[in-house]
Amino acid sequence: MMTYEELDLLKGIRSPEDLKKLSEKELNDLAEEIRRYMVSTVSKTGGHLASNLGVVEITIALHRVFDLKNDRVVFDVGHQSYVHKLLTGRAENFSTLRQRGGIAGFPKTTESEYDAFNTGHSSTSISAAIGIMRSDAIKGIKRSVIALIGDGALTGGMAYEALDDVGQQGLPLIVILNDNEMSISGNVGGMSRHLAKMRSARGYRSFKKGFASALRHIPLIGKWLSNRLERLKNRIKYFVLPNVLFEELGFTYLGPINGHDLHSMTQVLEFAKQMDRPVVIHAITKKGKGYAPAEKDPERFHGIGKFDEATGESVSSIGNSSIFADELVKLAGTDKKIVAITAAMASGTGLSAFKDKYPTRFFDVGIAEQHAVTMAAGMALSGTVPVFCVYSSFLQRAYDQVLHDVCLQNLKVVFGLDRAGLVGADGETHHGIYDISYLMSLPNMVILSPSSREELRASLRWAVSENSSPCAIRYNRGVLEDRPMDDGSILSWECIKPFRSVCVIATGRTVTTAIEVCTDLNVGLYNARSIRPMDESVLETVSRAHYIVTVEDGVVNDGFGTQVAAYMSMHGSGAKVIPVGVPNRVIEQGTVSQQDDECGLSKEKLAETVKSLIGGIYA
Amino acid sequence: MMTYEELDLLKGIRSPEDLKKLSEKELNDLAEEIRRYMVSTVSKTGGHLASNLGVVEITIALHRVFDLKNDRVVFDVGHQSYVHKLLTGRAENFSTLRQRGGIAGFPKTTESEYDAFNTGHSSTSISAAIGIMRSDAIKGIKRSVIALIGDGALTGGMAYEALDDVGQQGLPLIVILNDNEMSISGNVGGMSRHLAKMRSARGYRSFKKGFASALRHIPLIGKWLSNRLERLKNRIKYFVLPNVLFEELGFTYLGPINGHDLHSMTQVLEFAKQMDRPVVIHAITKKGKGYAPAEKDPERFHGIGKFDEATGESVSSIGNSSIFADELVKLAGTDKKIVAITAAMASGTGLSAFKDKYPTRFFDVGIAEQHAVTMAAGMALSGTVPVFCVYSSFLQRAYDQVLHDVCLQNLKVVFGLDRAGLVGADGETHHGIYDISYLMSLPNMVILSPSSREELRASLRWAVSENSSPCAIRYNRGVLEDRPMDDGSILSWECIKPFRSVCVIATGRTVTTAIEVCTDLNVGLYNARSIRPMDESVLETVSRAHYIVTVEDGVVNDGFGTQVAAYMSMHGSGAKVIPVGVPNRVIEQGTVSQQDDECGLSKEKLAETVKSLIGGIYA
Repeated sequence: MMTYEELDLLKGIRSPEDLKKLSEKELNDLAEEIRRYMVSTVSKTGGHLASNLGVVEITIALHRVFDLKNDRVVFDVGHQSYVHKLLTGRAENFSTLRQRGGIAGFPKTTESEYDAFNTGHSSTSISAAIGIMRSDAIKGIKRSVIALIGDGALTGGMAYEALDDVGQQGLPLIVILNDNEMSISGNVGGMSRHLAKMRSARGYRSFKKGFASALRHIPLIGKWLSNRLERLKNRIKYFVLPNVLFEELGFTYLGPINGHDLHSMTQVLEFAKQMDRPVVIHAITKKGKGYAPAEKDPERFHGIGKFDEATGESVSSIGNSSIFADELVKLAGTDKKIVAITAAMASGTGLSAFKDKYPTRFFDVGIAEQHAVTMAAGMALSGTVPVFCVYSSFLQRAYDQVLHDVCLQNLKVVFGLDRAGLVGADGETHHGIYDISYLMSLPNMVILSPSSREELRASLRWAVSENSSPCAIRYNRGVLEDRPMDDGSILSWECIKPFRSVCVIATGRTVTTAIEVCTDLNVGLYNARSIRPMDESVLETVSRAHYIVTVEDGVVNDGFGTQVAAYMSMHGSGAKVIPVGVPNRVIEQGTVSQQDDECGLSKEKLAETVKSLIGGIYA
Repeated sequence: MMTYEELDLLKGIRSPEDLKKLSEKELNDLAEEIRRYMVSTVSKTGGHLASNLGVVEITIALHRVFDLKNDRVVFDVGHQSYVHKLLTGRAENFSTLRQRGGIAGFPKTTESEYDAFNTGHSSTSISAAIGIMRSDAIKGIKRSVIALIGDGALTGGMAYEALDDVGQQGLPLIVILNDNEMSISGNVGGMSRHLAKMRSARGYRSFKKGFASALRHIPLIGKWLSNRLERLKNRIKYFVLPNVLFEELGFTYLGPINGHDLHSMTQVLEFAKQMDRPVVIHAITKKGKGYAPAEKDPERFHGIGKFDEATGESVSSIGNSSIFADELVKLAGTDKKIVAITAAMASGTGLSAFKDKYPTRFFDVGIAEQHAVTMAAGMALSGTVPVFCVYSSFLQRAYDQVLHDVCLQNLKVVFGLDRAGLVGADGETHHGIYDISYLMSLPNMVILSPSSREELRASLRWAVSENSSPCAIRYNRGVLEDRPMDDGSILSWECIKPFRSVCVIATGRTVTTAIEVCTDLNVGLYNARSIRPMDESVLETVSRAHYIVTVEDGVVNDGFGTQVAAYMSMHGSGAKVIPVGVPNRVIEQGTVSQQDDECGLSKEKLAETVKSLIGGIYA
């Protein structure tokens, strides 16, 4: 364990200004210290490690060349902003990373004036940067704007929409393409192949030297440079591999650069800073750089829980993802029409096993949820049964495609909505709390919300067999309880405790909490394992109650409880509905337990709510 | 007026098989006849004319070369499928185009076995085609799959996600890039410039001849061809301009071809059909081809209402779009921070006037709603006030960006949600009926729903000035009534008729209907011009009613009425809520009046509903 007190160089960096006091040798030592400190911290807190180890030199170079209190850098996805945080006054509190009230795992404008834009989902950085630049132009603000984006994020379509816009408009944006030769689970697509070709081109080795030496002769600061830019650009071109793709889109392409060579990175940034047109800097980095276990297995170290710093070993626990994926593998053994789709999340969603067993029926489309969904619609139309395993929060990207291509055509596409509900340390950008709201109004959509491992498996079995509609199965991060399932249909609601004046209807993982709370109380309790359709026979029964408490791991102002409440008013019930769920505001990082408590979903809070109602009746 | 009976050649085409009986001369005559028939029909029905005039020869060539009962062609967006419909047994009923129960303006798998996939929004065709191909491969189906996509649709990111996937995988998809040198309102972006460069390259003229003559020597059918493909490809390359961009993405590029030269189009398709790898055919066409008024003003003839066939003149009527846009121009005159954004809809949203007056504060990003929204967030963060005018249905594309980049950061971005509610002839893919549902749960979002022109203007004034949150203002296609506004805040609900046992709460354009219905009835009537926040003082008042009828131009199972109903149950009201709105199923094309009637929103149907409740109380 390396503590803040043990830091040698980093402790002296109270702000990026302090970087300027260090020699290049010291900066390289700083880079190594930052790596050790990140490994040590993340081994305790969990977090995104591999990507941060990859951008140490790039980030130091950014802070050497730019004044990021004024200049703006937008971190795409944002999970690679740890180094930036360490250099901008957040080293001392870094041990609070991803914890309640602590340093966030993503950039936060509220956390530091050095953070330009909040990110969390992929491929937004160039768009945000363009917005900043365009406002700056209107307001007469002069500053540099940089987008740092990984090769994985380039598979997301909106990055291309933005690149297309920059290039055409000639906006002097600096895009740093951090090419670590993979996104989370290995990259796919033509762009990826294109980048690979450039990396392996024979000019690369000599270029590195040549480019550096060419730069050495360019005075990096000074107005006279701009006059000579055209001539210099031509000179540079000799050393630069012809990146036709970026050039065709209107960018000046600089690279590939060794992203771990601090000297080169600094120089190319100084150069880019002077250019008055769109530039792409193609930096080659190694994910997990400097920590052997992460270099060896960058996918595991992409987003990781606590691990043993010395060995890199982590405790792998069973989760809903693997329960779902294992059942899918089993079903695919007998039903050859079943295919599995992921958007760069083979490992996170547990689909790696499917990939190994049925490679011809497994499709990883990259970080491209929109494409994944419409492709699934095409597949369903042509007779297979696609199962798209996707984090609830990421399916937001394909809302229109789910509506248009799947639901309006009533196609049997199954969505394994992983990480539904509160997710803990990743915070507000990763909560899967909106899905009930955004799926509720889509024609033909069935929404299942299993409360146990067996119901999770049964939901999937039903969705791929008996069902003939679009179907979303939502399950939380972590693991559902191992409770036996009754013999009712997955579309019916289980009666756990019979009708009383106070009835509780819980759904998904909250059923476990509700059982704990209600066991000794004089209340009815129902397990709503299907959210759409709702079980009208149970609704009719509970409409006679005084109070109905709904419990859900989702946003409460337009979710399951809203539907139950609306049903009651529409059917003339006098029951008062008390919806418990996630309030409609930003729920920040913390443990899921802390978030549950904040939202009234913890055992204690839920018990308070239910007991107060019983008191109201029987007092 | 040209009727079906007057057709000479087209009447003989009962199915695409019949095309094979015609000589090339006759086919060219057929093309002209189809043009005349489309112009004549659309002048009566309204519809998408210019794009269909542009694809006549491409579509005939497709049906000559492929058997589209078996082979699959996916029409991107789908508004250019009229010619396809005319050639596949739908010529006789073509006068019912876009009418209730008639021929749809977009492909419909339920309408014809020749229609492969339902489209409506841009940039989905390649994804759908890939899905079909992948299912085919698993099921052992052999057939050709073609995606027909315009250059405008290529600015949408998901098209790129799909291209990236095809190229990498080597799927033998045929993409026909229908390059009409503009999308709806003139194209933007680097890709567009790239295409323009290819069009104007000096090799183009000689290529046309050369390519045709090269093809003439290739026997188009026969297995031996595939053996010679590699050699031929090299030969072809001499005649083909180097489209590095597509080649880099893994496609074989063929083009540019004159898309109006039936002979060349047929040959290049025959050639592409034999290739066992991804192919892009770059066809140059002219939007509006063959009808002078449409050639001259293709933007107006993109989607047009009824017009005079002889002169091309159409009646332009005032609409909510121009009321909103005119107010925006006015506000921008005094507030220099206001900027306007469109995603290729400058004309449709009325923003052309803003563009002319404030060109440096106007941004057309192409068909790229995701980029538009995140860019707007960046702009807001950097101090301007972005107003994004966008059809409600198209904003669905950027749901995640609205949530993450705008709402979680609580940035003041104003959404002019045009075409909210039922839209009539464009049918189910264009209804703006989901916005209340998908915006309701987003943190910080304000949703306004003005019922009159003055409220529409007041909503915008409030949103750009007093307001400090994300704000969506929804307004319907057509025009709101010209009713004076009371002096209450736009966030308060207007009391039109005071409280009674039966209360009606209407929102948006339905207020006008509700006033007509309620004038002589003994009911309370309120105008909910703000949907979020709701006016709690009014809700408290009406909670004492027996019946509350909510009326909205949106999906009823998770919309405004749902919120009112849920409020009542949560506050212990015994009021029974009767929500009137769009049922949660596919509402097909027709006039808005017909759709209103289907949904219970017409004056007659609403009167029935309200009167039955009064009867229930006072009987």
